[in-house]
Amino acid sequence: MSKSNNLDNLRHSTAHLLAAAVTSIWPDVLPTIGPSISDGFYYDFDFGKINVSDKDLSKIEGKMKQIVKNWDKFTKEEVSETKAKAQYKNNKYKKELIDDLVHEKENISLYKSGDFVDLCKGGHVANPSDEIKHFKLLSIAGAYWRGNEKNKMLTRIYGTVFPTKKELDDHLAMIEKAKDNDHRTLNRVLKLYQANDLLGQGLVTLLPNGTIIAKELEDWAQDTERKWGYQQVLSPQIATESLFKISGHVPYYLDSMYPPMHLEEKGKGEKEVYYLRPMNCAHHHLVYKDVPRSYRDLPLRISEYGTVYRYERSGEIHGMMRVRGPIHQNDAHIFCTEDQAEEEFQKVMELHKYYYDLLGLSKKDYLLSFAIRDKNNKDKYLGDDALWEKAERIALKYIKSTNIPYEIEEGGAAFYGPKIDFNIKTVTGKVFGASTNQLDFFLPKAFKLTYTDKDGDEKTPVCIHRAPLGAHVRFVAFLTEHFGGAFPVWLSPVQVKVLPITSKNIDYSKQILETLLNEDIRATIDDRNETLQSKIRKAQIEKVPYMLIVGDKEENSKNIAVRLRDGSNLGQLELGKFIINIKDKISEKSLEL
Amino acid sequence: MSKSNNLDNLRHSTAHLLAAAVTSIWPDVLPTIGPSISDGFYYDFDFGKINVSDKDLSKIEGKMKQIVKNWDKFTKEEVSETKAKAQYKNNKYKKELIDDLVHEKENISLYKSGDFVDLCKGGHVANPSDEIKHFKLLSIAGAYWRGNEKNKMLTRIYGTVFPTKKELDDHLAMIEKAKDNDHRTLNRVLKLYQANDLLGQGLVTLLPNGTIIAKELEDWAQDTERKWGYQQVLSPQIATESLFKISGHVPYYLDSMYPPMHLEEKGKGEKEVYYLRPMNCAHHHLVYKDVPRSYRDLPLRISEYGTVYRYERSGEIHGMMRVRGPIHQNDAHIFCTEDQAEEEFQKVMELHKYYYDLLGLSKKDYLLSFAIRDKNNKDKYLGDDALWEKAERIALKYIKSTNIPYEIEEGGAAFYGPKIDFNIKTVTGKVFGASTNQLDFFLPKAFKLTYTDKDGDEKTPVCIHRAPLGAHVRFVAFLTEHFGGAFPVWLSPVQVKVLPITSKNIDYSKQILETLLNEDIRATIDDRNETLQSKIRKAQIEKVPYMLIVGDKEENSKNIAVRLRDGSNLGQLELGKFIINIKDKISEKSLEL
Repeated sequence: MSKSNNLDNLRHSTAHLLAAAVTSIWPDVLPTIGPSISDGFYYDFDFGKINVSDKDLSKIEGKMKQIVKNWDKFTKEEVSETKAKAQYKNNKYKKELIDDLVHEKENISLYKSGDFVDLCKGGHVANPSDEIKHFKLLSIAGAYWRGNEKNKMLTRIYGTVFPTKKELDDHLAMIEKAKDNDHRTLNRVLKLYQANDLLGQGLVTLLPNGTIIAKELEDWAQDTERKWGYQQVLSPQIATESLFKISGHVPYYLDSMYPPMHLEEKGKGEKEVYYLRPMNCAHHHLVYKDVPRSYRDLPLRISEYGTVYRYERSGEIHGMMRVRGPIHQNDAHIFCTEDQAEEEFQKVMELHKYYYDLLGLSKKDYLLSFAIRDKNNKDKYLGDDALWEKAERIALKYIKSTNIPYEIEEGGAAFYGPKIDFNIKTVTGKVFGASTNQLDFFLPKAFKLTYTDKDGDEKTPVCIHRAPLGAHVRFVAFLTEHFGGAFPVWLSPVQVKVLPITSKNIDYSKQILETLLNEDIRATIDDRNETLQSKIRKAQIEKVPYMLIVGDKEENSKNIAVRLRDGSNLGQLELGKFIINIKDKISEKSLEL
Repeated sequence: MSKSNNLDNLRHSTAHLLAAAVTSIWPDVLPTIGPSISDGFYYDFDFGKINVSDKDLSKIEGKMKQIVKNWDKFTKEEVSETKAKAQYKNNKYKKELIDDLVHEKENISLYKSGDFVDLCKGGHVANPSDEIKHFKLLSIAGAYWRGNEKNKMLTRIYGTVFPTKKELDDHLAMIEKAKDNDHRTLNRVLKLYQANDLLGQGLVTLLPNGTIIAKELEDWAQDTERKWGYQQVLSPQIATESLFKISGHVPYYLDSMYPPMHLEEKGKGEKEVYYLRPMNCAHHHLVYKDVPRSYRDLPLRISEYGTVYRYERSGEIHGMMRVRGPIHQNDAHIFCTEDQAEEEFQKVMELHKYYYDLLGLSKKDYLLSFAIRDKNNKDKYLGDDALWEKAERIALKYIKSTNIPYEIEEGGAAFYGPKIDFNIKTVTGKVFGASTNQLDFFLPKAFKLTYTDKDGDEKTPVCIHRAPLGAHVRFVAFLTEHFGGAFPVWLSPVQVKVLPITSKNIDYSKQILETLLNEDIRATIDDRNETLQSKIRKAQIEKVPYMLIVGDKEENSKNIAVRLRDGSNLGQLELGKFIINIKDKISEKSLEL
């Protein structure tokens, strides 16, 4: 048995224990299901009219510790439908699960540990009282029965468990760090974005600090991609329904789109339905189609920081990480011949590597997910089997040649083709879907795109969809968590803060500020009537990379004292020398101060 | 009598002559009205079932020349309603005009010249046969009776007339030049933008060449405005109806907005109406409101190349000049105290001057239009009389202190305050509404914006709305016409074209190309198998500023031969020296090559 299965068994066994404790404390609570998950386990309960909150978690934990002492094993019993339903005569959820097992002609098994019995398919530890020791309940949340929002909202209790105390402690420390580094928490100080009910759910405005980071990323990507042979366009965020019918977004992507705008001009007979676009592909296919194309034009790489809007369900909205809009994507569509596709695809992989390396993400920080079609739901996708098999075969070949680890995700493909997603693990252990690279044989066909080949034949190009830096807001959220708010200097909204020690030093400090601003360094001054210690503390909380401390000594020597946000001091420096140093760091996009 | 009245009389008299000619050729045609306009005159006719086209204009002109010989004067006769209607027993349009005169208790007068009689208020030349000599019919268009689209579409014939042949010829030459410089004509070669029915009426995509110009303008403005103390944000193009109700766009601006999106999330009770925004103000007011503000934060200058969409009627859509979207505005909102407003307002005027000077627009090229409220339609505007009078009084004071000529436009104000528009005259004589500067006491109040003043009181800030470079597409259209497509080098999509004389010179030419690209100069190569003359001609049509001609001589000397788009030659130059020169021109945003 592999290590991961051992861990799964431990997690799932602890879920049993959780249910035993809850039903022991509140006998009327109905247990439903309790699986293991990637970093622990949960159990969903119907608490009826009982109120339960985070404050009850330690009580439940105490009860678990007490109960587990008497659990020496899990005993399996296969039972009939009648006997199983008798066991759960007051629990409609378990009865529904039993009905499913009967319908699927599966065996029904009950597992007993101590006095607690649960309907279960198995997968437990051998010696619960010995093995279930290092666990912790983490949080309480709402969850619909079977994940369906038409069903009743149940109460989900999350927990985690490890074989050793050290592993548990490390994990809890990482959770704490993740909480501190949550971009929504950091936003309180860093002021990166604004959410507001008047904008609408899931819509965010990047505030000046967030905009600086987004624009730095955008300038970097546009500059890089121009050099890599991309051409930029600027297209509307809306288009007619007719366009989205050609691209297939209507109907295949309609669930993720904002509702239509019905335009009708009085007396003009103009009547058209418009949609906010959820992707840029359709617009870029139109650009391709603007003039007749020949093989000499290919590869044609059309790029745009294109803004799209997606209708995410309100429960899925999460800070800047998952928004409805505006989603400014580092997007491009590469139109090429089939012969050129492999090289173009590999170049896109190299471009990803270039971006990630510069941001300090090493190859071990990311993995590929190869998202293919759900073969049991073919009507969710455009195009025929032959083309899908071809696209998946070729994409897999390309992936393998990169030597980056990958996993296959069935059913995750775009409606028009297989997707290769880059998933990055942040320092806090979260996995972040950063970007995508897709090989598409379908949309160029749907748009009847052609090029004249060398031999004079009209052929259909292939399209590669790619967005290495994903969406502005999402990528800024990721970087915020990745760097814990302490951005490299080139991305820092404020790069230098000048701190006069007393009010006497303000005039000279302002001269320094002026010099820095003239050098295009983003600098501010803290000229409040506060102590130096308090000014330093504020700048550190704001994660400003460099503090220039200006007192009488510095005024006399015409030098400055440089302090970094980590508390270290660079000592006295000539201002000119400091400026040369910081400008080097900025232009190199250095990760170090 | 002033000169302009003389010209108006001449134009209007020629409109009589046009109607006389048309009704002489086609006796069944019904004449309606024929006013003088800013560059000539027109006359609207109901041609019934008769087809008339541009081809008929010279025939009509011929008839006008023949008729006018016998026109020695205009004779006025004041008549009764009965007599007037007898004159027009078959012309319902004239009868409607007569009814209006009766209703308004005005005199009814008929003017006779030669055999032709027209219902008219007067304003004619004394000696038509002497004075109406230098005229030209220009075009035929459709026009609704009384400008109302519910009425019948009439046929409008446009013409122009001048006292001297020279003035007429100059004007016709300018019209020809305007036609050549029409951005829609130039777009055929320059490939700046794409319009497409699948995008939707009035929606355009900036193609790579147009995007380069737009991005150069944007970078320039963002860089400039950062230095002038603006902070940038990035906000959504949509918002809830609730937001636009606070800002007053619903209902005051609803006619110019795209229709609503009705969002309803199943099972969630989420139900909200969304609109594409027609302006950025509401979003920027929310940014102000994100945190409590103090007098120390003011002036707070929130800027954004914010994208808006406006529902222009289909008849008003015109290339890139008037679009429905995307309208990327060089927008900002300055929140300040009332005391700071004058200085901030003047700074905005200076910013305009800085932009216009650098683009080579001198003070004589533009004038201000001061758009105030229509006092007879107060319900079209937010806020009370006292505040409007204050806003108009202060704005006028500010305008006067700039010493730029201005004219007053009653009824042209925004619904939330008076507007100062900058109108630029292009080289082709067109007047182009470039930008706006607005003083607003209303929206900050509507949004309940406040700041804590020195004395601890909560006060309401003033808001200045400004957009010196207007909208991307519109400003690119203007610059295209202004420069006739021959953009200054910093704005040119292709700055240098390398022209190998024969195929033997291609390799060396590609080395030169590579060197230029590495220096961030936008360069291409014309390596087609064509003669040098044909390559030069193509580059000239594309208005590429610099052509580098590379033959054996240049290969041997390692120099290049530089030719400008106007046909002049800079002779042989070292490549390194050329690069230094062109980079200077680019960084200085020079108008000269």
